[in-house]
Amino acid sequence: MNNSRKILLNESEKPTHWYNIAADMPNKPQPPLNPKTKQPAGPDDLAPIFPMGLIEQEASAEKYIEIPDQVQEIYNIWRPSPLYRARGLEKALDAPVKIYYKYEGGSPSGSHKPNTAVPQAYYNKQESVKKITTETGAGQWGTALSFACAQFGIECEVYMVRISYDQKPYRKIMMNMFGADVYPSPSDRTQAGRDILAADPDSSGSLGIAISEAIEKAVQDESNKYALGSVLNHVLLHQTIIGQEALKQLEMAGDYPDLIIAPMGGGSNFAGISFPFIGENLTQGKKTRCIAVEPASCPKLTQGEFLYDHGDTAGYTPLLPMYTLGHNFRPAAIHAGGLRYHGASVLCSQLLKDGLMEAVALQQLECFQAGITFARLEGIIPAPEATHAVAQVLREARQAKKEGKEKTILFNMCGHGFVDMQAYEDYFSGKLSDHSFSENELKDGLTEIRALQP
Amino acid sequence: MNNSRKILLNESEKPTHWYNIAADMPNKPQPPLNPKTKQPAGPDDLAPIFPMGLIEQEASAEKYIEIPDQVQEIYNIWRPSPLYRARGLEKALDAPVKIYYKYEGGSPSGSHKPNTAVPQAYYNKQESVKKITTETGAGQWGTALSFACAQFGIECEVYMVRISYDQKPYRKIMMNMFGADVYPSPSDRTQAGRDILAADPDSSGSLGIAISEAIEKAVQDESNKYALGSVLNHVLLHQTIIGQEALKQLEMAGDYPDLIIAPMGGGSNFAGISFPFIGENLTQGKKTRCIAVEPASCPKLTQGEFLYDHGDTAGYTPLLPMYTLGHNFRPAAIHAGGLRYHGASVLCSQLLKDGLMEAVALQQLECFQAGITFARLEGIIPAPEATHAVAQVLREARQAKKEGKEKTILFNMCGHGFVDMQAYEDYFSGKLSDHSFSENELKDGLTEIRALQP
Repeated sequence: MNNSRKILLNESEKPTHWYNIAADMPNKPQPPLNPKTKQPAGPDDLAPIFPMGLIEQEASAEKYIEIPDQVQEIYNIWRPSPLYRARGLEKALDAPVKIYYKYEGGSPSGSHKPNTAVPQAYYNKQESVKKITTETGAGQWGTALSFACAQFGIECEVYMVRISYDQKPYRKIMMNMFGADVYPSPSDRTQAGRDILAADPDSSGSLGIAISEAIEKAVQDESNKYALGSVLNHVLLHQTIIGQEALKQLEMAGDYPDLIIAPMGGGSNFAGISFPFIGENLTQGKKTRCIAVEPASCPKLTQGEFLYDHGDTAGYTPLLPMYTLGHNFRPAAIHAGGLRYHGASVLCSQLLKDGLMEAVALQQLECFQAGITFARLEGIIPAPEATHAVAQVLREARQAKKEGKEKTILFNMCGHGFVDMQAYEDYFSGKLSDHSFSENELKDGLTEIRALQP
Repeated sequence: MNNSRKILLNESEKPTHWYNIAADMPNKPQPPLNPKTKQPAGPDDLAPIFPMGLIEQEASAEKYIEIPDQVQEIYNIWRPSPLYRARGLEKALDAPVKIYYKYEGGSPSGSHKPNTAVPQAYYNKQESVKKITTETGAGQWGTALSFACAQFGIECEVYMVRISYDQKPYRKIMMNMFGADVYPSPSDRTQAGRDILAADPDSSGSLGIAISEAIEKAVQDESNKYALGSVLNHVLLHQTIIGQEALKQLEMAGDYPDLIIAPMGGGSNFAGISFPFIGENLTQGKKTRCIAVEPASCPKLTQGEFLYDHGDTAGYTPLLPMYTLGHNFRPAAIHAGGLRYHGASVLCSQLLKDGLMEAVALQQLECFQAGITFARLEGIIPAPEATHAVAQVLREARQAKKEGKEKTILFNMCGHGFVDMQAYEDYFSGKLSDHSFSENELKDGLTEIRALQP
């Protein structure tokens, strides 16, 4: 009996290039717009906050972009990541499914985020950037960037949403450990922060405010830049190593997925595992269904609209063509902090619009229960974000059993939940609930956005 | 340039047997004694609390004991563990050393403990045990056993030292997640607990009290047994897969260690990585130095005496021949909870007595600083216990640089620190201090123990 659980690659078998899906898309993504002129935003619009190396990737039409040696050396700390066959889950489900998952929780910060934090720090270092500023919500992205900056001797300054700063001290300590300075946002270090505090000294902050603070600090000094952990094309690009590794590993296992499932926040997790397979669909006639799972409390893909909108709450960024709930949308305070984002990345939005990917929205109670099932059967405690993928996998397996139809499923276990145990405790103690919207709640938020269209 | 960081084994390359060092020791360990008769304790003394499968291993003279298939299947979740070349650390140290480390933090509980929890649950299942009781201090062992019991459908009841139960809620939640019942100890569920609470309703508990409660619950019902996470021969035996994997991985790298370093609590971590190499010293003429690192606040190896003593504070266990500070010794409340144990395992004690291993004691501030250095350079946040190994590695590297002498060092990174971030915060904020003993403090604790000798 073959009871192998993991399919491993050696470091020398790592992908040598990132995969740029824009090269293969039948409809290219529409350009970002300068919010004042409503004209396509060019490199000059982005140069104050990003290094040119990343701006070039943002707009690249090349299908493959080479991964620099120095990035590969650091990737070697946790990459290639293992591909698991979910033996425990399969046995318990007794359905005609094979289930595989990539596990990204072995990285320095415990999620997929360092896959892009490291190259972002690298390209900043190439242009002698001394300090990178960023925002973080629950802290995954801030931790990843802190680690990456430490590798290149770059200072890192993180604006952490006040309520998370107070409620999730472990993430803040991890960032300190990697050498970053972490400030609760709103802070008195920026005009944006001071304005908010003047109006509301007890403000608990928001991702939008924290972005404003980080951008303001970055543009104040030419030797500083800003970094973002999802949404943008170059971020999604870097994550494609996940799916490329999975392609090789499944080939070693003699399998190919009928279905790929990943949670959707800004889109980098979903893109990481699915884009290389969507590429195979587009160029090799494969027919893998790719499903993004969003939380029912932030349903931009299933209930939002495809519009030009800002990427941040304060409206500082270019207008991006995306499925959105409106940049002023305030998601409920669910524990899956990484999924609380009003819009979907431009690349994912175009793919969804063109029917090249699918989306579902799930309630959090079902997701937490799925996470507990997964932990007991597979021995990995999932981050709250990752439980959304597990819950959809369980649905698909039950459906397959009902239909008596064989399926091979691949999903991304994007991070562990060791620092999210309070979320599970809240679930166990009955403090969590599901979420539904009143009839006009979502529509109203979009009225203002429609006025922004070119 | 070869910049490989990890040496991986596939599941099919896992060791097929555990290695029993007793078979190769020149002086066999002296037998445990029944505390009443002072005669060697036999299987009957242990049968009420352990299954026969483990009792046989405890006294086995066989050099190799086969690992059951069902245990191997579950080991596949996280084994073989990677062997890392510490490229980041080596570069920063600029010393003539090669540094390798096994990383055991990828296991379900985040440390080496599941290596023995799984076979212990397996042998209990073979004898139809319905429930396993155990104690846990900071929670690592309790988490590992909870996970293992979940794999075999065995109930798990954990007595967690009250102060840890209150201060470290994440570990308690993890145990609940794996399906275990966790009670703060002292509890009102046992006579031992009730007696303590009657005398001191606010007792913060101790490992000794928790052991008493777990044993009392185990012997109350024939279908229940008890389990221990370190110290005993069978526990150390199971951990030898770590060192056996390292032997293979170093062979693949074309290297062999001059020096092996591991932290010492009860001894299972140290035994796991070093025993297979000490075996090579004993049978193949190799000369690897093996150094156990204990905390200066609990210096049984460097300042204790080799005596017969109880394994638990309450004095329920057989008398074991070991280096001890006395079973009533109360270590300071350092964050490396796994190292706060008054005695060393019988096997390690005999090896130390015979000059076949070495020991050093380190202060905690040096260890935490080493842990931070390691996290920044290697991208893995070490558990407080594991920082003790890192600190000694740094000392050895500096020494090698001073002497201009090449060295190959192997150590065990026995667990990650994701749920121990408060310890680092306490370090950052200057709340931690080093520890020294008054002249008679340690001697006085041993007076009572000398009276126990046969």
